[in-house]
Amino acid sequence: MNLILLEPHDVAQPGQAILRDQRRLTHLRDVHRARPGDRLSVGCTDGCIGKAELTALEPDHARLSWTSLSEPPPPALPVHLVLALPRPRMLARTLEHVTALGVKRITLLHTKRVEKSYWQSPELRPDKIHQHLVLGLEQSRDTLMPKVTLVKGFRAFLDDHLPTLLTEGRGLVAHPGMADPCPRGISDDTVLFIGPEGGFIDWEVEQLLDAGCQGMHLGPRILRVETAVTALLSRLF
Amino acid sequence: MNLILLEPHDVAQPGQAILRDQRRLTHLRDVHRARPGDRLSVGCTDGCIGKAELTALEPDHARLSWTSLSEPPPPALPVHLVLALPRPRMLARTLEHVTALGVKRITLLHTKRVEKSYWQSPELRPDKIHQHLVLGLEQSRDTLMPKVTLVKGFRAFLDDHLPTLLTEGRGLVAHPGMADPCPRGISDDTVLFIGPEGGFIDWEVEQLLDAGCQGMHLGPRILRVETAVTALLSRLF
Repeated sequence: MNLILLEPHDVAQPGQAILRDQRRLTHLRDVHRARPGDRLSVGCTDGCIGKAELTALEPDHARLSWTSLSEPPPPALPVHLVLALPRPRMLARTLEHVTALGVKRITLLHTKRVEKSYWQSPELRPDKIHQHLVLGLEQSRDTLMPKVTLVKGFRAFLDDHLPTLLTEGRGLVAHPGMADPCPRGISDDTVLFIGPEGGFIDWEVEQLLDAGCQGMHLGPRILRVETAVTALLSRLF
Repeated sequence: MNLILLEPHDVAQPGQAILRDQRRLTHLRDVHRARPGDRLSVGCTDGCIGKAELTALEPDHARLSWTSLSEPPPPALPVHLVLALPRPRMLARTLEHVTALGVKRITLLHTKRVEKSYWQSPELRPDKIHQHLVLGLEQSRDTLMPKVTLVKGFRAFLDDHLPTLLTEGRGLVAHPGMADPCPRGISDDTVLFIGPEGGFIDWEVEQLLDAGCQGMHLGPRILRVETAVTALLSRLF
């Protein structure tokens, strides 16, 4: 927790927050070893960051106060990540990694090789997703909450989402066997498609390429989804 | 398991292997849904890869046979990774990530901000480390086993290891606040230093720079060690 992310329900009045959840209270006590009078990094969800003074740290609450928070959060990546839904534990970690890396738009997509049971996982409950996004923001001292969209059918995605999505930037499909290597250090608005373990099926890749996306690969190694996502984002931007 | 990695004790005679461990037998049955007659990707530790025929799949063993394995494993990264020892669960995942990415030389190092208790973790037992390396190789269809060295003192590292290490390549220290950004797409032999959560202390960075290393940073975001390691390797190479 490199930043205390203040959500609307934490802010008691302008310039004052009260934390009541044991996760952050425990972290303040046991990891930060914080004491009243300490100045800690805080940021308001979707707002600026800065220092606040810890004015009280009690077993059931902590109080923070500040005069102004004026530093902008770190820049976001210019990418919409469209990710075939990974298995639940991998999803949790992947959401934290990509949020920490600065992704702000995430679509979780059904594809042929996504196990249907993954869509029943409690990890997809809005509160669980929110929790992983918060952990990613706290890690990277960011405040801008990513938006996560779930699309449970690939055909519906092609018809209802893809045309609009590709107005956001150029589509890049990461897939083994494509001719071109992953570009490096780009700054264009990008829609990045990453398949499930086992990959997109040929038909899915064809549909994405037919819609105007470019294919690219990350080399001969087969990586786990969470490794591949971080490797792709870091190489691209 | 994108490759069955055959260790010397698996190979019964040239061209034939017997697997007896439940981890791989279960994976063959339940994930690959393999049946006798199937041709599976195999590779001998530190050797070539190719296809073998599954000739038997019994509750307590599987038999594989092949005539020749001639495809080389994927290229290694030209890097020696010197990593401040992460906490045990992070270490396990990080070893898998970096092995899958192609790192072959890993030094786990004590620094001021590494908790001393981490050195007592069972995750540092040679058999546990080996297990994570195997998982990384199986994932990326590689056979070349990384070498892991443990160095439990930073001063001893400076005196006894660093001078030799820097003959292997140019030293790059990833540290927030350094002037230069992480280089992209290099192919030089490199010794990459990555600090613990909380970072190297100033004195440690000074010692590494004084020894001839260059500092670099990965941007304003603070990343977890496992995210940072993957991001750095993917951007560098």
